[in-house]
Amino acid sequence: MSAILQNLSPSISSSTSTFLGHNNLKNNIKLPNVSIPRKISVVVKCVASPSTEKTAYKTEVSRNGNLAKLQAGYLFPEIARRRAAHMAKYPDAQVISLGIGDTTEPIPEVITSAMSKRSYALSTVEGYSGYGAEQGEKQLRAAIASTYYADLGIDADDIFVSDGAKSDISRLQVLFGSNVTMAVQDPSYPAYVDSSVILGQTGEFQKDVEKYGNIEYMRCTPENGFFPDLSTVHRTDIIFFCSPNNPTGSTASREQLTKLVQFAKEKGSIIVFDSAYAMYISDDSPRSIFEIPGAKEVSIEVSSFSKYAGFTGVRLGWTAIPKELLYSDGFPVAKDFNRIVCTCFNGASNIAQAGGLACVSAEGIKAMHEVVGFYKENTDIIVDTFNSLGFKVYGGKNAPYVWVYFPGRSSWDVFSEILEKTHVVTTPGSGFGPGGEGFIRVRAFGHRENVLEACRRFKQLYK
Amino acid sequence: MSAILQNLSPSISSSTSTFLGHNNLKNNIKLPNVSIPRKISVVVKCVASPSTEKTAYKTEVSRNGNLAKLQAGYLFPEIARRRAAHMAKYPDAQVISLGIGDTTEPIPEVITSAMSKRSYALSTVEGYSGYGAEQGEKQLRAAIASTYYADLGIDADDIFVSDGAKSDISRLQVLFGSNVTMAVQDPSYPAYVDSSVILGQTGEFQKDVEKYGNIEYMRCTPENGFFPDLSTVHRTDIIFFCSPNNPTGSTASREQLTKLVQFAKEKGSIIVFDSAYAMYISDDSPRSIFEIPGAKEVSIEVSSFSKYAGFTGVRLGWTAIPKELLYSDGFPVAKDFNRIVCTCFNGASNIAQAGGLACVSAEGIKAMHEVVGFYKENTDIIVDTFNSLGFKVYGGKNAPYVWVYFPGRSSWDVFSEILEKTHVVTTPGSGFGPGGEGFIRVRAFGHRENVLEACRRFKQLYK
Repeated sequence: MSAILQNLSPSISSSTSTFLGHNNLKNNIKLPNVSIPRKISVVVKCVASPSTEKTAYKTEVSRNGNLAKLQAGYLFPEIARRRAAHMAKYPDAQVISLGIGDTTEPIPEVITSAMSKRSYALSTVEGYSGYGAEQGEKQLRAAIASTYYADLGIDADDIFVSDGAKSDISRLQVLFGSNVTMAVQDPSYPAYVDSSVILGQTGEFQKDVEKYGNIEYMRCTPENGFFPDLSTVHRTDIIFFCSPNNPTGSTASREQLTKLVQFAKEKGSIIVFDSAYAMYISDDSPRSIFEIPGAKEVSIEVSSFSKYAGFTGVRLGWTAIPKELLYSDGFPVAKDFNRIVCTCFNGASNIAQAGGLACVSAEGIKAMHEVVGFYKENTDIIVDTFNSLGFKVYGGKNAPYVWVYFPGRSSWDVFSEILEKTHVVTTPGSGFGPGGEGFIRVRAFGHRENVLEACRRFKQLYK
Repeated sequence: MSAILQNLSPSISSSTSTFLGHNNLKNNIKLPNVSIPRKISVVVKCVASPSTEKTAYKTEVSRNGNLAKLQAGYLFPEIARRRAAHMAKYPDAQVISLGIGDTTEPIPEVITSAMSKRSYALSTVEGYSGYGAEQGEKQLRAAIASTYYADLGIDADDIFVSDGAKSDISRLQVLFGSNVTMAVQDPSYPAYVDSSVILGQTGEFQKDVEKYGNIEYMRCTPENGFFPDLSTVHRTDIIFFCSPNNPTGSTASREQLTKLVQFAKEKGSIIVFDSAYAMYISDDSPRSIFEIPGAKEVSIEVSSFSKYAGFTGVRLGWTAIPKELLYSDGFPVAKDFNRIVCTCFNGASNIAQAGGLACVSAEGIKAMHEVVGFYKENTDIIVDTFNSLGFKVYGGKNAPYVWVYFPGRSSWDVFSEILEKTHVVTTPGSGFGPGGEGFIRVRAFGHRENVLEACRRFKQLYK
C-alpha cells in the first residue's frame, strides 16, 4: 500500500459516511487529481522525505462522469453518519431513531417459521433448490397477483419478484437507459433521482436551484394538496410517482391518479408507481395505480414487503409490468425487463420467497395488517404531538410518515436542533428535494416506548 | 386487453424462453413495429372484422436501443426452453441435467441451521434486524476477508457483500458506465458480454463473426492452453477474466496471471477477476488475483458462495475492491462502487448473510470442502468417461466443468444430439462465444447416480 493510501485508509472504512466526506472534499476543491492535496498532508504529518514517497499507480480508466455528478452522500448514509457523530459526542445519550424509514417490530411468526422451515429444508435432498426462475417462484408470483391485483387484470406472469424496491428502481433505470427523461415528485425518495443521475439521464447539479438539469421536479406542497399542478409539468418519458408518498405521507386520491394517468396517456409517458406503503391506506384512496382505468397501458408498479412485514433486512419486493405497456415501436416493456432480470439478477433468495409466500397467506395478511396497524397507532401519537405543539402537520393518515412544517427554517438546521436537544434522529425534508425544505419527516416505525419518549422530548423542546 | 395483446399473452408467460421466440421473430423480420404481423395473424385466426379491431395504445417512450442489440435469449433460459420442449416430446424420459451450472446437493446443516436460527430470531425483539449496512454485515465482511484474503492485504472494508456474482457484475457495469471498453475471454460466462451490451458499451452484433462490435474477444483455445495471447489483445478499459474458467474449466497459472496483471498495468486497464470456482482448485494455481504482486492496483475480484455451499438459490456473494485501485484522475474505484451499492442495492438478505457467516466458520469451511470434494469426484467420473470414448477433454481438474471437444461439429448440433439420444442436458460451447464452437460443457453438479447414469448413456451413444 502506498503512503498516500495508507494515509487514506482509515477514511475508506466500512462506514459509508466517511466516503461522503471525501466526495465533498473533492467536490469543493475541484482538483483534477485528488491525490495531490493528500500527498502534501502526508509529508506534513509524517515528516517523511519527499524523495522516498511513492506516487500511487493510477489506471487509465476514466471515472464514470455520471457518478461525479452525484451530490454529497446518499441521504440515509449521511444521516447515519451524523447520528454516529452525535453518539460519539454524547456517549450516554439514549438516542431514538425516527429517521431512516427502517422497521423495528419483529416479523410475525407465521412468516419467520416459513423461512426457518425453508432454510432447514435446504439441507435435505427433497427440500433443496438451486437457481429459481429469475422472475420469482411461480406460486409466489400468482399469490402476489391475486392478493394485490385481484380483478385488476394483473396476472402472475406480470409480476417480477425482486430483492426489494430500491434494487428494482435501479433495474428499471438500466432498462430505460440513458436517453430517457424523467420526472419526480418534489420532494421524493432520493433513489429515483440518484439512480437517474448514475444512469446518465440528467445534467449537472445546479446548486442555485438544488436540482439536476434535465429532471422535471413536480412540486408537491401543502398548497396543491401534495399533488402536482400537471398543467405546468413538462413532458418526460418516465414519471416516478409514489403514493402514499415518501416523505410527505400524502396519498393521491382516485381523482388525482385518474388525472395522472390521463396526463401520461396524453404525453405518451410511462408512470413508475411506487406503492410500497399501500397497506397503510385507511380510506378509499387507490392502493394500486392499476385501479385507474387505462393505467395498464402507461404504468409499472413497484412494491415491497419491507414496510408490511418488516422485511427491510430480509429483502423481498416485486415489480408489476402489464403486457399492455408498449414502447413507441410497439415492443412490450415487460419483455425487455424480463431480459434485464435474467441477465442482471438471479432472483430473490429462495428463503425470502418462502417468507413472501407466508406473507400473502390468509394468516400472513392478517399478521401484516397487525404490524401496519401498530405503526399506524405510532403515527397517530406523533401527529397528535406536533398538532398539540401548534405545528402544521401533514401525512400520517395513510402512511407511516409524518411531515412537519417549520416555516422559514432550514430542514438540516431543524434536524440538528432536534438531534442536539432531544437525541432524536429525524430526516430533513430538503434531503428529498428542494420542495422538502422547511419540513422534517418523522417516521412512525419504532417501539412504542421510544415513540412515546421521543414525543415527550418534542413537547419539552417545542412547548 | 386489446385483441392483439390477447393473442400475444400466452407468449409473455412466466417462462422466459417464450420471450426469446418473439425476440428472434422481431430480429429476423426487422419490422419497425412488431405489432403489425401479429395483427394480421389475429385477423386470420379469429376471422374478426378488421373494423372492430382496436389498435393497441403505444407510449411515446423509445425502446432502449442497447436491449435491442441483444441476440436471442440469455443462454441458460434458452437451454431451459429446449429442455422443456424435449420433456414435452418425451414425457416419460428420465431427463438428466448437466447443463445450467446449478448445484444439486443439500446445503450442509451447519449452514442451514444458522439461517434457520436467524429466521426465527427475526420474530423476537432482540433478534430482529431491519436495514443492514448496504455493504454487508461487518462481521461477515471481516470473515470473508480473513478466510479468502488472509495476508493478501484485502481488508474487511474492501469487501462488498452481495446477492451473488451475477448481480455484482451488472452493478460493476453500472459503475463503469457506457463509455468504457471491455475485453472478455472467448469463450466466457455470457453475463459479462450481455451486461456490457445492455449498458451500451458495445456496438451491434456482427453476425458473420458472432461478436459484438467494440468488445475485445480474447480467444482461449487448447492451442494456447486457454490463456489468451496477450500480444494480440488490444487495450481495453476493463478485462473480465474468470479462473477457474466457466465454461472451459481451465485455470490460469501463477505465471499466466502475473502476465495478465503486467498487461493490465502496462495498459492501465482494470481486471474484473471472477473467482467463483476458486475452491475447486486442487493444485497451486492462485485462488485469488490478489495473490499476484501489484494486482491490487489493477483488479477487482467477484466471488460467490453459490458453488461452494449450494447457495445458487440462497443468493450470496461478494466483490473485493482494494483501496489501491484508482481511476485515471486518482479517484478510488471503491468509493464510487460504495455509492452504487448504497443507491442501487440495499444489501443481501440478512438470513443469507447469517448463512454466509456459517460458511466461513471452521465447521462451515470443512463442510464446503466436502461439497466441493463431492462434485470433484463427479468431475473425475465425467472426465474418465469422455477420455475412455476417445474425446479430447479439457478442464475438470480445478473446476466443476468439463469441456469436451467435438472437432468440426456445431455445438448446438451436439447439444441436440445428446439431448435427443440420451435425454441428458449439456451446454453448447458456442453459447459462451464463438471460441466455444465445437465444444460442449458438461457440468459436474449432480446427484452421483445421475452423473453415473448420464455417463452410461454417453458411453452408449459414443461407444
